[in-house]
Amino acid sequence: MRKRIGERTLLFRSEPRVRSAAAIVAKNEGDGAFSGMFDTVLEDDKFGEDSFEKAECKMFQTAARLACEKAGLVLSDVHAMLAGDLLNQIITANYAARDLGIPFLGLYSACSTMAESLLLGGVLTDGGYCSPVLCCASSHFSTAERQYRYPLEMGTTAPPTAQRTVTGAGALLLSAQEVPLPVFSHIALTAATIGRVVDLGITDMNNMGAAMAPACCDTILAHLNDIGNRVEDYDLIVSGDLGMFGCEMLQDLGRRNGLDLTGRYLDCGASIYLKEQGFLCGGSGAGCSAVVLAAELLERIERGDVNRMLFLATGALMSPTSGMQGETIPGIAHAIVLERRN
Amino acid sequence: MRKRIGERTLLFRSEPRVRSAAAIVAKNEGDGAFSGMFDTVLEDDKFGEDSFEKAECKMFQTAARLACEKAGLVLSDVHAMLAGDLLNQIITANYAARDLGIPFLGLYSACSTMAESLLLGGVLTDGGYCSPVLCCASSHFSTAERQYRYPLEMGTTAPPTAQRTVTGAGALLLSAQEVPLPVFSHIALTAATIGRVVDLGITDMNNMGAAMAPACCDTILAHLNDIGNRVEDYDLIVSGDLGMFGCEMLQDLGRRNGLDLTGRYLDCGASIYLKEQGFLCGGSGAGCSAVVLAAELLERIERGDVNRMLFLATGALMSPTSGMQGETIPGIAHAIVLERRN
Repeated sequence: MRKRIGERTLLFRSEPRVRSAAAIVAKNEGDGAFSGMFDTVLEDDKFGEDSFEKAECKMFQTAARLACEKAGLVLSDVHAMLAGDLLNQIITANYAARDLGIPFLGLYSACSTMAESLLLGGVLTDGGYCSPVLCCASSHFSTAERQYRYPLEMGTTAPPTAQRTVTGAGALLLSAQEVPLPVFSHIALTAATIGRVVDLGITDMNNMGAAMAPACCDTILAHLNDIGNRVEDYDLIVSGDLGMFGCEMLQDLGRRNGLDLTGRYLDCGASIYLKEQGFLCGGSGAGCSAVVLAAELLERIERGDVNRMLFLATGALMSPTSGMQGETIPGIAHAIVLERRN
Repeated sequence: MRKRIGERTLLFRSEPRVRSAAAIVAKNEGDGAFSGMFDTVLEDDKFGEDSFEKAECKMFQTAARLACEKAGLVLSDVHAMLAGDLLNQIITANYAARDLGIPFLGLYSACSTMAESLLLGGVLTDGGYCSPVLCCASSHFSTAERQYRYPLEMGTTAPPTAQRTVTGAGALLLSAQEVPLPVFSHIALTAATIGRVVDLGITDMNNMGAAMAPACCDTILAHLNDIGNRVEDYDLIVSGDLGMFGCEMLQDLGRRNGLDLTGRYLDCGASIYLKEQGFLCGGSGAGCSAVVLAAELLERIERGDVNRMLFLATGALMSPTSGMQGETIPGIAHAIVLERRN
């Protein structure tokens, strides 16, 4: 049976299942639109550590351990962790992997990490190479802000197109076999589409949505074309962190390409905060789509509110160095398909 | 048939083949021990670009295109590229992937990238998901030096344990199917072992070999244990860039664990330069093991000088930020097995 269809889409015929998930966030996220859905909401976004970087690492580790524990497994049961984050040299994931002590494959795909990790996790579990695997991603407002933009102490004002980096870590446990305590029993990973790097020439580091929307549209089109589906075949199409502005841009790009996403589209970044929280265009960061998927979207599938979901995490692939050297900001979007199965 | 054996080892039963490879280096590497083996030796390590970062990206792209062309393929034949580099947000690989326009999975595993990309490339090709795939890694002395250590203009003196970051990019084309113009006909990828992050508490950023040797030893032991082999079952065991000091440390760690690597061990970093070039402990960087594998080691297998090789690329997983926050430097080593087949 074919395991690849069209140009970029992989089929997971054995339909590995998402067995459990965990999501940890900070107060702003805990007070947002998905209030009450997260496993842990930190009052202190330093999580008792002496730096924000160490706090992010602790958050990441805690989510990974929790996803494992919730499923009734111990860490040594896990065959591999596929994960990344936004920090230089993905120090969050690396140091977490050190402390967890499990086989580790480091990824960098900016805010598209959660989808890349599930795509590769799908290949490993469906292919019979590793199972269970942990797929994780994280971000932290304070680590990202000072690495990508300005020292926190400057208290710079955000422009209207800016999004706030979500402080959060999400972990999903994917397994071909049953687990002792499945949190979910009905969520199958059935396909994935590999992203391409797309660049429409955006240079504004405060307008990541615009940099990522073209890549997102490109992957949706490739996915539908490869698999022979229409938008209507999905109950929900999810993008990672395009934010208010990027969402509009994606829907506009979609219309120009014959896709009408109306009524079946959600952007994790545009949805995670409440309007009255005042975070402008919404949330962003590798942790954004990770925690919304882990805390909210999986439940919708498990309950049967959503039967087939196309989940795209979207990443902006620049660095401060490339920006200073006059490079534009390319984007990428990997996609996975999650389906309800009895 | 089992696709996983022991704790961390994956078996590629269909034995996907390395069909072609390309390696580009700068003058120091071209004048070194593997002189005459590289596809291209740059006279100008800016490669006609206006920054070292853009030069590294051009080098990366050129190697990827060349590996593809040498096999008689065009870029659109390639199902996926798995790649990374040492720069923040892997901008080398990301911008190269933009210009190449092919499906892309970004990795970060520091100097262990080449082995990680071949491990995951092995899973994708052996599993029937993608074939051919390109596996690439690069580094550049001048981009790494200014990102990880000091501005080049300072002309700092290197301590005796220091290694020189190799300026080079390597690309391997891995395929389950035949290609129009195979450069190699006898090189099979038969197994891989996933690394764990190991930390023995090294804090000296100028002694990466010591930080990586324990992880390398850990993966060799895991591999042999998983697969039921002894050191003698391999004609050659290769580490990525432990350098002179790290090599000794690995061999010592090996002896303490009952492994005698004498006579069948090579470190790419310790081997790439000639002693008279004066580069202290040797070469390092994600490009180091990538170009030595692509230019020299594959030929040894193709010719039949080596029938079974365990190739480990070794990565140090710190960042300047983690170092300044007092963190130690953990290491990781992924391993692949390449075997000669008729």
